[in-house]
Amino acid sequence: MKAGIQISNRVSQIPKSAIHEMTRLSKEVEDVAFLSWAKPTVDTPDHIKEGAVAAIRNGQVGGYSESTGLVRLREAIVEKLKRDNNVEADISQIMVTVGAIEGLAAAVMATIDPGDEVLLFTPTYSTHIQQVIIASGKPVLIPTIEDKGYALDFDAIKKAITPRTKAMICCTPNNPTGTIISENELRELASLAIEHDLTIITDEAYEYFIFDGYRHFSIASIPEVREHVIACYTFTKSYAMTGWRIGYLHADMTRIPQIAKAHIPFAICAPVVSQYAAIAALEGPQDCIKEFRDHYRAARDLMCERLDDLNTVFSYQKPHGSYLMFPKILLEKGRDSMAFCKGLLKEGKVSTTPGIAFGPTGESHLRLSFCVTLDEINKAFDRIKALYT
Amino acid sequence: MKAGIQISNRVSQIPKSAIHEMTRLSKEVEDVAFLSWAKPTVDTPDHIKEGAVAAIRNGQVGGYSESTGLVRLREAIVEKLKRDNNVEADISQIMVTVGAIEGLAAAVMATIDPGDEVLLFTPTYSTHIQQVIIASGKPVLIPTIEDKGYALDFDAIKKAITPRTKAMICCTPNNPTGTIISENELRELASLAIEHDLTIITDEAYEYFIFDGYRHFSIASIPEVREHVIACYTFTKSYAMTGWRIGYLHADMTRIPQIAKAHIPFAICAPVVSQYAAIAALEGPQDCIKEFRDHYRAARDLMCERLDDLNTVFSYQKPHGSYLMFPKILLEKGRDSMAFCKGLLKEGKVSTTPGIAFGPTGESHLRLSFCVTLDEINKAFDRIKALYT
Repeated sequence: MKAGIQISNRVSQIPKSAIHEMTRLSKEVEDVAFLSWAKPTVDTPDHIKEGAVAAIRNGQVGGYSESTGLVRLREAIVEKLKRDNNVEADISQIMVTVGAIEGLAAAVMATIDPGDEVLLFTPTYSTHIQQVIIASGKPVLIPTIEDKGYALDFDAIKKAITPRTKAMICCTPNNPTGTIISENELRELASLAIEHDLTIITDEAYEYFIFDGYRHFSIASIPEVREHVIACYTFTKSYAMTGWRIGYLHADMTRIPQIAKAHIPFAICAPVVSQYAAIAALEGPQDCIKEFRDHYRAARDLMCERLDDLNTVFSYQKPHGSYLMFPKILLEKGRDSMAFCKGLLKEGKVSTTPGIAFGPTGESHLRLSFCVTLDEINKAFDRIKALYT
Repeated sequence: MKAGIQISNRVSQIPKSAIHEMTRLSKEVEDVAFLSWAKPTVDTPDHIKEGAVAAIRNGQVGGYSESTGLVRLREAIVEKLKRDNNVEADISQIMVTVGAIEGLAAAVMATIDPGDEVLLFTPTYSTHIQQVIIASGKPVLIPTIEDKGYALDFDAIKKAITPRTKAMICCTPNNPTGTIISENELRELASLAIEHDLTIITDEAYEYFIFDGYRHFSIASIPEVREHVIACYTFTKSYAMTGWRIGYLHADMTRIPQIAKAHIPFAICAPVVSQYAAIAALEGPQDCIKEFRDHYRAARDLMCERLDDLNTVFSYQKPHGSYLMFPKILLEKGRDSMAFCKGLLKEGKVSTTPGIAFGPTGESHLRLSFCVTLDEINKAFDRIKALYT
């Protein structure tokens, strides 16, 4: 760093985002097969877009909303939580946020102080780890058990709890593995949270993308643990709205004003045009969610089939949720996942995400996104096959 | 706080937002004269709204943008900085943010660690103070000299610098006083920053609203200090776009990836629909800015005239910029500005902001916004006059 450029330790210790780095490198290559970003490749449904257009033309989006979000949107969220998450809430327990991400960041800031420890179950979304580091907290990474489908390791979790442990971040369905944490496992986490007075911060971004008869269980639906939970949700995955930056969180009503003290300095309020788009999403037909889910399941099946055909190159745990999976690279050169990804991009013109971006136990893995067309998956795997077999 | 509800010290020490509290209370009163929020009461200009509508319908806003923002928007920002701020930049020095606020928050996180000190010149926008507290830093509040038009007190500033001082936050035109920091004063701040290796974080939200022949001077236009500066700007005030949550920052290109490490966990990217609205704002006609400025000057003149008529109730420093002013309450009961504001709301149906929201030297003052119609100002002052004279 040049003289005169003061950089904080908190950001210095965060490595450059491997996800964003791969995106940048991918743009330099022509005709890439793109399996690296966790964003739907389809556009936002028309009725949602037109909800935003009407609000713009009606003069409803120029000014700030309440910092916790438009009342009508929070009312629609309350209905949705009751219908789909088995959570009884009222609007004083809801805060509309800039995607799930800003809600997660505000939740962490409202919960921990410098030096406090936060449990994370790896491999996990690197941004969760970074949010703890930005808060000058200590991320405590607890590996899941890969050959049991990335199951939680409760012995390790119990051993990791110290007097400095303040929270855990719990992402189900999981990014990057697509693992669903079962109701039984969540009940066991809830007991630990109650016993040790921990806050459970959830990321439920992929709640609707669940296959094979599994179902999404929201930990806040357990009455005994509810006051311990800050649950973060988003519209961006469910309704193909990543660019709109709109999500929300649910927490005890006494916590909301505390979380707002971080939310206001981060954002003042969520973008109002996107809040109206979200109202259209919740109040309109829900068919798009089922269509997306059906597509992702078909894409998942195709990707697994193509991986089965490459069983000397990859092993994998079949994901039952999300639109992401996390195969292990069996080749010697896969030990450095960043180098492997760069090689695959350069020689094979396939863009993927290196496992190292998801914590140390992610090394020797790739994250693959199946929120793409079947053609894109075939194109990518034809190239991978040509390169490695 | 209930058992089981873990709240961090950092948010616990932040008082509840007086601005948002007054907004909430004001909603409970019918027919309020509203002088309390710093948002334009006019809607976003049509050509900007239609820019967003076209992008929505063209399928351009559904997915994430680059985390630093759309290239075309950053190119337009580079042009604007050259034309209006005398700052030569390129797109690698620009990051598009969720209003100026998120840029300021990310800038603070990328600059300071827990316990580091940040200089702030009071009265100042309370959110700046809170951003330092959220970062577990120590805000060092240095009173300005009220009877010199809230001028900077350089003797006090020099005395306040310690080995832990890492940055200063510099808001010009100032919220809440409307004070413009002169070029000479900014050059003196620049010398201090170079001498003590400090980062200068600017909030230039009101850059276009300057009257009486004064002009806005951007400290990053001084070549010698440029590497020390993170300059935060916004579209939301200039183009009546507060609800769109769209701004940007300019810093040395080596700093941008470091600031991105906070920006990504806060927001991933700024809302893409708002980025397209911002492109329409920068590429379209600029007449709206002049119209807003002319209106605010007329509104400022009227407000000062009405205050002159109440010179036993208020004294004031005439603001030469922004759309805010900060009169002192001469009445005995004005010593508790929050109680005074609540009384004025209840008995007079006029909504204002208590000075205490802007640091301890703000006590005994009111913040009044003149980004309203002339009728609104007259209505408010007719009521104030009836109540206190």
